Formats: sequence, structure tokens, C-alpha cells
Amino acid sequence: MFRVIHYGVGALGVQIVRAAARRQGLQIVGAVDTDPAKAGRDLGQVAEVGRELGVIVAPDASGLGSLQADVALHTTRSFLLSVREQLLGIIAAGKHVISTCEELAFPAAQRPEIAREIHEAALAAGVTVLGTGINPGYLMDYLPITLSAMCQEVHSVSVVRVADASQRRLPLQRKIGAGMTPEEFRAKAVGGAMGHIGLAESVALIATALGWKLERTVTTLEPEIAGEDVTTRYLEVRAGQVTGIHQVARGIVDGQTRIILDLSMHVAVREAQDTVIIDGVPSVRSTIPGGINGDVATVGIVLNAIPRVVSAPPGLLAMKDLPPPSFWT
Amino acid sequence: MFRVIHYGVGALGVQIVRAAARRQGLQIVGAVDTDPAKAGRDLGQVAEVGRELGVIVAPDASGLGSLQADVALHTTRSFLLSVREQLLGIIAAGKHVISTCEELAFPAAQRPEIAREIHEAALAAGVTVLGTGINPGYLMDYLPITLSAMCQEVHSVSVVRVADASQRRLPLQRKIGAGMTPEEFRAKAVGGAMGHIGLAESVALIATALGWKLERTVTTLEPEIAGEDVTTRYLEVRAGQVTGIHQVARGIVDGQTRIILDLSMHVAVREAQDTVIIDGVPSVRSTIPGGINGDVATVGIVLNAIPRVVSAPPGLLAMKDLPPPSFWT
Repeated sequence: MFRVIHYGVGALGVQIVRAAARRQGLQIVGAVDTDPAKAGRDLGQVAEVGRELGVIVAPDASGLGSLQADVALHTTRSFLLSVREQLLGIIAAGKHVISTCEELAFPAAQRPEIAREIHEAALAAGVTVLGTGINPGYLMDYLPITLSAMCQEVHSVSVVRVADASQRRLPLQRKIGAGMTPEEFRAKAVGGAMGHIGLAESVALIATALGWKLERTVTTLEPEIAGEDVTTRYLEVRAGQVTGIHQVARGIVDGQTRIILDLSMHVAVREAQDTVIIDGVPSVRSTIPGGINGDVATVGIVLNAIPRVVSAPPGLLAMKDLPPPSFWT
Repeated sequence: MFRVIHYGVGALGVQIVRAAARRQGLQIVGAVDTDPAKAGRDLGQVAEVGRELGVIVAPDASGLGSLQADVALHTTRSFLLSVREQLLGIIAAGKHVISTCEELAFPAAQRPEIAREIHEAALAAGVTVLGTGINPGYLMDYLPITLSAMCQEVHSVSVVRVADASQRRLPLQRKIGAGMTPEEFRAKAVGGAMGHIGLAESVALIATALGWKLERTVTTLEPEIAGEDVTTRYLEVRAGQVTGIHQVARGIVDGQTRIILDLSMHVAVREAQDTVIIDGVPSVRSTIPGGINGDVATVGIVLNAIPRVVSAPPGLLAMKDLPPPSFWT
């Protein structure tokens, strides 16, 4: 039996709560969310589990230390600068951490100082910290790394992800710009406020696993434009407006592009897919026709990682450092 | 730099030698093969590397203990009863072991006493023992286990492998019955002398990883029959003769078939593929069109597992117990 704390009960967090409440072998012992609409209420109500869970959502993390818990499932923000203090707080409270913070999937890539700080704090506290999720954390980094096990030689690694955002939650549809004009999109993109977080982490994770010295990562970001009107459960996109993103990250090794991560995520996808292409000996082409629903799968990965994280050595780890998480009962 | 011993320099072993000789980061320091045609000769000649390797193939393992080596790459036989003494000898010599012995991929399935004996010997010697390869070891067990990480629920796991044996080595073509009459095949099959080794291990590995209590495994074996004459690099199969095997292993859990491993391996394959189908939340269908050449990929896995095995805790491990092997340089 693993005792879990839900740190962050937002759009993704509530899905984790619902799955955890159903899962044999998990006991929910705490929850934290700063949202005044959630704090003080029963977690089962907040997450619409259909029953009370007997756990009141705390407005802050001050009570974490006194909770008997194994691991905090952390789902608040995408950037390390925003979650650094939260993570250090959980670590100081002596709990393992599984976080969907995108930059935590491989923080050595962009934030080596914070990565070191978290690693040392985790070592000192004897806890393990893992950043994971579907992307970054699985489809565009862990899966190609795992598939490369079959290869005597690897010349290049490409991943093409075409993700149907029409089936995803509203914050994600907003985040990819669905419904914006192309001008709005480009203006926000120039300011760095658009685009998927985590491709640079995925490139660095692949390069590190394969022993390639990454010279630099070049990323491009373009809007996908609606050819006709599109209606999702949450919003409408007129023809000519933005349906989502097309983002490509290229990892340059020895002056050559050896890693290409090509991500389209929009609300007008006709054929979703997740395809890994390794050019090597043997070459490997592996595809998931229809693609993977990122929210559903992220919930799966977070819960499935719990036994691996609890029994791992202390410190800040990446997915490649653990025995493979898998579904467990 | 990892120092390796090649224990077994047969059809598969020589391919591992050639790849190891090319690989940066590996140093070949020893070789063992009982075949009088090989023992006493330079390993580079035996394996047709194109140059001498300065390593003489020893006729037995008596000199292993005095070799400065990290790991023995063991490729001799499929059955644990046949390799038990060899493995215990390597362990006693204080070397880690990576073996393609099919039953070693998950020996708890069929040979729990030998598994325990090897595990305890490995613990006592402080070395790690891993059974791996493409199948068992990867495509029909490790890959579905790894893909299940995305699932909140798993109802069943199926793997369909259609492998083109026309591109494989002669011993493998013979082993699957290519060129036999159906009567010869069935007579040998009744005696237990036909069929792929390892499906039962793969079923048990999946069930164990997912926490399912396996009641029993039911296996069927049928010959694939040539509709027209087929010629491979090594042999000819007339219409009506056997081209290979169709073998299915079903894992029964709670009275239901929850694992199906469906393997066709023959010399008249039109569309090779390796497909994993998980019925769950989410359901996952992942396919490798064209399939994977088992020999080439087994060589890859064996070499790629070296760093993981060398840094693993001692004992007998399965692929699911290690951080994911991946191509390394």
C-alpha cells in the first residue's frame, strides 16, 4: 500500500485523484491546492470522485511534514523556476516526489543549477524525485531510448507526434493557441509565451542516454491554421484561425542533426499518431496509430511510477534511470 | 571501457563478436567454445572479423577466473538444464553474465529451483546475471511491459509477431522446421522437439510485472505450410512442406485469457510485423511494420545491456528489473 499526497488539484491533478481513488494499492492521505475555491473542501468533492475521500485540501504545504505519506504527486506548473520552492518543500518534508513539471523531466538541460540544488536536497533528505509524464517523459524521449536497445548502431532518432488536442482539456487547448488569430499567435510566440514545454528536455534526455554530446538544440514553432470551422467540446475555431501548434526541435551532434522531435498538436487532427524512427542497425520504425491521449496516459505513468520511485536510490532521477514503470496491481 | 568474454562462438556468438569488435568502449579479453574447429584459433579468424583480435578461443572455461574481465556474453544453449553448470562456472569466476539462453529470460517460470540456485550463487559472488535477447527478452515481453506504463487499467495484453525467418541464420531456419514434411514436424512436435523456446517465459514475465497471478499457460504449435516453392539463402522448401511455426501461448489469469503471445516465424512471410495490443485505459496499439531482424537486434540488446548489468545490484535479474538498456557510445 502506497500513501500518496496530491500536490496540485487542477485540470490534470483531479484526473490523477480520480484514478488514484479507483486504484487498489493506493491510499490518498493528503492534498494541497492554493486555489481558494478548492482549499478547505473534501478532495473527493473537488475532484468529483463521486464520494468523499476524507481528505481536506490544504491551502499550503505547511502540514506536509506531519503526514504519514510515501510520495507526493505534484502537478502545478511547467517551469522549474515556478516549482522550485514547492519541490524543495516536499523534499524537506521527507516525501518522494513524482512531478509532471515539464522542465523537471530532464532539468540538467535548461536549469542545471536548480537540478543540482534539487538533487542535493533529495540526497540529503533520502528521497527520490522524478519528473515524468507522456511528453516529456515518455513518447518523445523514453520510448525512442527504450527502442534503441535493439540497435547495434544509431545514426539518428526522429519522433513524429501528431496529437489530437480536440480530446484534451480546455487549458491545453488554450495553451496551444486554439481560436487565436495567426497574428496573436505569432506575437505571443515571439514573446516566448507559446509552444509546448519539454521538447528541449526530450532532446537532451535522448542525447544523454545515447552518449551523444549535444552541441545545441534548434526549435521552430509555427501555428497550425484551420482550413474550415472546427468545434471542440470547449471552443470554436473559425477557418483561418489557429488550431494549435507545429513545433520541431532539432538536436545537433557533431555538426549534424541527429535528433528530430516533430510535434503537431491541434484540434483539427485527422490522423493522430506517435511514430519513432531510428536510423541505425537495425533501423526501427515503431508507430502507435491513432496516437495516445496525453492526459489519460500521463495519469497512468504518474501512478505506475510510484513503486519504482519509492524503491529507487535517493536523488533527482530521470525516466531512463529507473527500471521501467509498468502497470501494476 | 568494458572488458568482455565471448562464451559461445556459434552462429549468434560470432555476430556478437563482430559487433563488439566494432564497438567503441568494449575490449574483448576472452572467448570460450568447445567446438574443436574453433578452440585454439584466434577469435577474429573464427568470427571472420577481418583481423586478428589477439584472443585465442579456449576449449573450456577453466581459465576464466584469471581473466581480468567485467562480463561474459553467453550464447550456447536454450535450456537452463544445459547451461546451468556453465553459468555457475562464470559466476564462480566472478564475472557478470549476459546470456541469450531463452529459459534464463525469466527462469522463475519453468525452473524455479535453478533460478534460485543461480540467484544465490550470483549474490554470493557479487555479480549480476541477466537473460535477454529479442524474444524472449524484448519484443514479446519487455516492450508490452514498458508500454503498459501509460495505462491506468490493463485488461489484456496481446503481442502478434510475424517474423521473416528467410533472413535469419540456417540453424534457426532448421529449428523452425523449414523444409520438413508436415508429418515430420508433427511427430517431432509431439516429442517436444519443435517450437520456439521462451513464450512461457514471456507470458510469466508479463504477468509478474503487471502483478497478475498466472494460473497456467496454454501453448499451441502448428506448422506453417508452403503454398508454393520457397527458396532461401540456405535451403529450399517445396509447396506442401513446412515453412516454419505458428505458436500461440495464452496466459490464464482469474480464469480468463489475459495474455496472448502469437508468434509466426517462417520463411515465406509476406508482411513481417511486431505488434503490441493492450486493451486497457487507454488502449495502446503499437506496431513495428516490417518487423525486427531477431539476430541483429539480439546482438544490439546484448551489447547495450552491458553498462546496465555492470552497475546493477548482484543477483539474477530480468529485463524488467534494470533501468532500460539503450544504445550507448
